[in-house]
Amino acid sequence: MQYAVLLAGGSGTRFWPLSRRSRPKQLLSISEARSLLRITYERIAPLFPAERVFVVTAGDLAGPTRREIPEIPGANVLAEPAARNTAPAVGLAAAAIAGRDPDAVLAVLPADHHVADEPAFREAVRGACALAAAGRIVCLGVRPSRPETGFGYLEVEPRPDGTLAVARFVEKPDLPRARAFFAEPGRYLWNSGTFFFRADAILAAIGRHLPDLAAALGRFASGESDLRALYAAAPSISIDFGVMEKEKGLAALPLAAGWNDLGSWEALAEVHPADESGNVATSDVLPVDAAGCVVHAPGKLVALLGVHDLVVVDTPDAILVCPRERAQDVRRVVEALAARRREDLL
Amino acid sequence: MQYAVLLAGGSGTRFWPLSRRSRPKQLLSISEARSLLRITYERIAPLFPAERVFVVTAGDLAGPTRREIPEIPGANVLAEPAARNTAPAVGLAAAAIAGRDPDAVLAVLPADHHVADEPAFREAVRGACALAAAGRIVCLGVRPSRPETGFGYLEVEPRPDGTLAVARFVEKPDLPRARAFFAEPGRYLWNSGTFFFRADAILAAIGRHLPDLAAALGRFASGESDLRALYAAAPSISIDFGVMEKEKGLAALPLAAGWNDLGSWEALAEVHPADESGNVATSDVLPVDAAGCVVHAPGKLVALLGVHDLVVVDTPDAILVCPRERAQDVRRVVEALAARRREDLL
Repeated sequence: MQYAVLLAGGSGTRFWPLSRRSRPKQLLSISEARSLLRITYERIAPLFPAERVFVVTAGDLAGPTRREIPEIPGANVLAEPAARNTAPAVGLAAAAIAGRDPDAVLAVLPADHHVADEPAFREAVRGACALAAAGRIVCLGVRPSRPETGFGYLEVEPRPDGTLAVARFVEKPDLPRARAFFAEPGRYLWNSGTFFFRADAILAAIGRHLPDLAAALGRFASGESDLRALYAAAPSISIDFGVMEKEKGLAALPLAAGWNDLGSWEALAEVHPADESGNVATSDVLPVDAAGCVVHAPGKLVALLGVHDLVVVDTPDAILVCPRERAQDVRRVVEALAARRREDLL
Repeated sequence: MQYAVLLAGGSGTRFWPLSRRSRPKQLLSISEARSLLRITYERIAPLFPAERVFVVTAGDLAGPTRREIPEIPGANVLAEPAARNTAPAVGLAAAAIAGRDPDAVLAVLPADHHVADEPAFREAVRGACALAAAGRIVCLGVRPSRPETGFGYLEVEPRPDGTLAVARFVEKPDLPRARAFFAEPGRYLWNSGTFFFRADAILAAIGRHLPDLAAALGRFASGESDLRALYAAAPSISIDFGVMEKEKGLAALPLAAGWNDLGSWEALAEVHPADESGNVATSDVLPVDAAGCVVHAPGKLVALLGVHDLVVVDTPDAILVCPRERAQDVRRVVEALAARRREDLL
């Protein structure tokens, strides 16, 4: 059977001040009324019955997560006792699901991405699940729409059977390399962080590349240890870096569905319509000689006078103002708040 | 006897979104907890007993104005039935006070200016009142601290008796002229809009230069017409343009007391201390690679990331973001709101 695993961890820094530790990105309603987690669930719900949808999230987010997706059994929300990046999260989900269905095929999807063309996305998921059911580990690769320097890439090669093989993972490139990649759209795809595999296949791959994690998962699966012991033993590492980049024989499936990882406030401009001045606002905005700004200030009018390409975000206790090109540096604000022990704003 | 007349009209555009029609600048607490009107009153209170302090304000602001200065008799708050600029306001105050004290000397002071050195200011007011009691019409002229293009100037000449005579009023100069004025500090002073005269002297001057207003004031003073009829007949003109610029024999008294007319949010940077990055904030601010910004956002933290020389103002229903050098154009935002019939934000 096929299962969806939504990765819904997240530390809540990229969309500060809207995102906080207690309300990370996947629980936010950024460009529409539904949360990103809810949108992700509804996107894949036509393919996976609710009892076969799992979510891995932080322990203290289990309650809000269950409230966002009341359709799925409460036990399907796997609450991590500590943040250990995605490899332990994927391993936990694979072990938990393999224990009830040894032939399970898993679709592992980040719970905080944007997809414009949902039918096209589901079509890709269907194809990837079929490949995974046949034993392959499959990466969903996004056809680049610009020479993006903010993503990792998959370098792919066509195989005789018509599928694509992942030749290697490529770290975030500089702009000249990103432009070269963009000039070869058949060979370079964005790594979307979306993966498909049989549960036993990924557990075997974890065994090859992260033996300590595999051993801890084995003790947990056998009942020899509990979740807390699993996470105490688990290394903090991403499934990409810990397993996928080292694994041979990965398949890639190309996706052209208006995908966006919503990596920062800047990304709002890529998924939300702009006004005639190029300002993108989810709320009331009054531009006077202003262009290219991104505004999120629910319930307020934001008057932009003589400014351009700024991000302005308002929340009940904090405001962010930064140039769009600095939006990814909002983590520096969060770090500065942490240094000042402003727990109320983290 | 000496009387203070505080001019407290104002349309509430320059400090939008904090200022509104119902809460113009003089009722705001901008750089400290007290309102500008209250600060103005307390600044001159050591010189004028409360019963000899008058305020001219808009009809619908009489209530809030009385609440700000509960010390003065309610009847001393003169409520204008219509906005007619400062000449009718000064005429009304002069007529009202002359009716009870034919020898009254009036100090007419805008109610929304900033003065850093209050003892020095009071010393100047004392000197100006003495000159006015001797029959002169006196302008308080501020010694320029920079080549300001936003103010009108008084060109002055020393007289044999040691006082300064106003040779002429100079309109707001361009930068080269402002620089030339700044190079002759003994000859050019900023017009502070603060005037001193006997009530009968200003009424006579109004008779010379604004005969229609003088006639309407005469009918009002004799009981032949009421306040509404006075304002229906009164021209809308400033006391500077309508009377002072045309009157001969004006005296000037120089002031060096850290005066600022608080003409826009930009001025906040001139009267409020800056942090080590040159950011001026009346509320909690977190600058990261940010400098020279002016922030007013009571009860909120404003994170400034990678921006410089911006004005950021937060209120419960509106936010303003603009470069400091565009702060005087905030009226364009107010005009745009009026065009959109956003009465809720005006």
